[in-house]
Amino acid sequence: MFQCDREIEWGECDAMGIVFYPSFFKWMDATFHAFTRSEGFDQSSLKNDYGLAGTPLVEAGCQFLRPGRYYDRLVVELTITKVSRSSFSLAYGFTIGDTPIARGNETRAFVAEKDGTIGKADLPEAIRKTLEKHHAG
Amino acid sequence: MFQCDREIEWGECDAMGIVFYPSFFKWMDATFHAFTRSEGFDQSSLKNDYGLAGTPLVEAGCQFLRPGRYYDRLVVELTITKVSRSSFSLAYGFTIGDTPIARGNETRAFVAEKDGTIGKADLPEAIRKTLEKHHAG
Amino acid sequence: MFQCDREIEWGECDAMGIVFYPSFFKWMDATFHAFTRSEGFDQSSLKNDYGLAGTPLVEAGCQFLRPGRYYDRLVVELTITKVSRSSFSLAYGFTIGDTPIARGNETRAFVAEKDGTIGKADLPEAIRKTLEKHHAG
Amino acid sequence: MFQCDREIEWGECDAMGIVFYPSFFKWMDATFHAFTRSEGFDQSSLKNDYGLAGTPLVEAGCQFLRPGRYYDRLVVELTITKVSRSSFSLAYGFTIGDTPIARGNETRAFVAEKDGTIGKADLPEAIRKTLEKHHAG
Repeated sequence: MFQCDREIEWGECDAMGIVFYPSFFKWMDATFHAFTRSEGFDQSSLKNDYGLAGTPLVEAGCQFLRPGRYYDRLVVELTITKVSRSSFSLAYGFTIGDTPIARGNETRAFVAEKDGTIGKADLPEAIRKTLEKHHAG
Repeated sequence: MFQCDREIEWGECDAMGIVFYPSFFKWMDATFHAFTRSEGFDQSSLKNDYGLAGTPLVEAGCQFLRPGRYYDRLVVELTITKVSRSSFSLAYGFTIGDTPIARGNETRAFVAEKDGTIGKADLPEAIRKTLEKHHAG
Repeated sequence: MFQCDREIEWGECDAMGIVFYPSFFKWMDATFHAFTRSEGFDQSSLKNDYGLAGTPLVEAGCQFLRPGRYYDRLVVELTITKVSRSSFSLAYGFTIGDTPIARGNETRAFVAEKDGTIGKADLPEAIRKTLEKHHAG
Repeated sequence: MFQCDREIEWGECDAMGIVFYPSFFKWMDATFHAFTRSEGFDQSSLKNDYGLAGTPLVEAGCQFLRPGRYYDRLVVELTITKVSRSSFSLAYGFTIGDTPIARGNETRAFVAEKDGTIGKADLPEAIRKTLEKHHAG
């Protein structure tokens, strides 16, 4: 299971003193990019090696269980929950110490540019294998 | 139906030149705050008039239909989809011109501080009436 | 004098309940982009019409006079303070009602890509005229 | 010399593929908070131990030398450049590998609430000693 940890920053909290909720989505995105990096690919290599335009979001969601506060040490765990032909889904668990504070999910598509339009593209075989290696269950 | 419009800003887009997706959640939050303001209440008055600590998120989600780009003029529409005892749900529609580009949702709870802990609180009657007035369907 | 107004948002404030200061720089940048737009050019047209890669920052600064709070209606005024061969400087005034709350400045360069490197580029004549029109004093 | 390192994130870059410049100020702020933490104080302890309301900005600036890009490993160094009665100044150096990419500065005031107004407050003696320990030169 891939995981990142980070400290919740002053500027990521709101006037109630708790995390401004869009920050959770920013952290999912950052964790996804760190994950791809740890597996040897990233947005640049997707473009250069496979001619892909990126991995934009199809949908994203999050359930908020407990507030996070600045200086809290946050652990974000990433698992792959589904791999389809041109998209894949991820689950994120957020914990502070042993306490889960949020659970998120993303579905991302692989896209390529063709004749000036962006459209869905098949996952490259090497990327598919990487994602399946992290498939939960 | 309550709506806000805004121009997508340079700093809200990513290196692909499209909206960095957490921005959609930031816009939902901003639209919610503008909505409460237009109805005569806000985070301060909730505290001062009703002793509430705020309206934190229970869950949030978004489906992304088409990319948004900087300088696009975005319209965000807010409707109330559910009003419960101490929480309520909202739906957000994002359109550029006549084209829907995303659909989002939030569930928010009313909370109050009691003996140093934050817990769910009943919706004040006046707030409930306001929310029900914007209830879709 | 070019000006924009905006409402300070919940998510732009910090746990002290005042504006998280990097937001002022975000607002300068957004005001600059709105200004170029109002003058008929933007990052895309700079690229397409003049072969420029953009207008990155050389330096930026801000003096903070009074705190801003969420829901404050902020007016941002932009003036051009200097136009050089390949760069120009801007001043920004931030007011709430009649009260100045901050004064900022930016120096931006015009850059172009040449043989894979980004370097300074002369201001196109039409852009120079536009900037000089807004030159203060 | 206090230093933090961080990886530049996808969402911190703009459509040109380089750091959206307000991010540098966000990083200065985060480095300052990490520094106070490493010295045994933070915004909460300033409030609880000394009755202070915080350390808001008086001014901030940054010179941008070279672009930063996502996945770049950034080192941020903090030094104290001045300690006055109720304010202090900091310098920040940003490097990627051995290459400086930006130099920033902040001046912050110590403030306290008195009869409902926020005003300047003297630095507590213990905090002054801590800051002077990191005084450059």
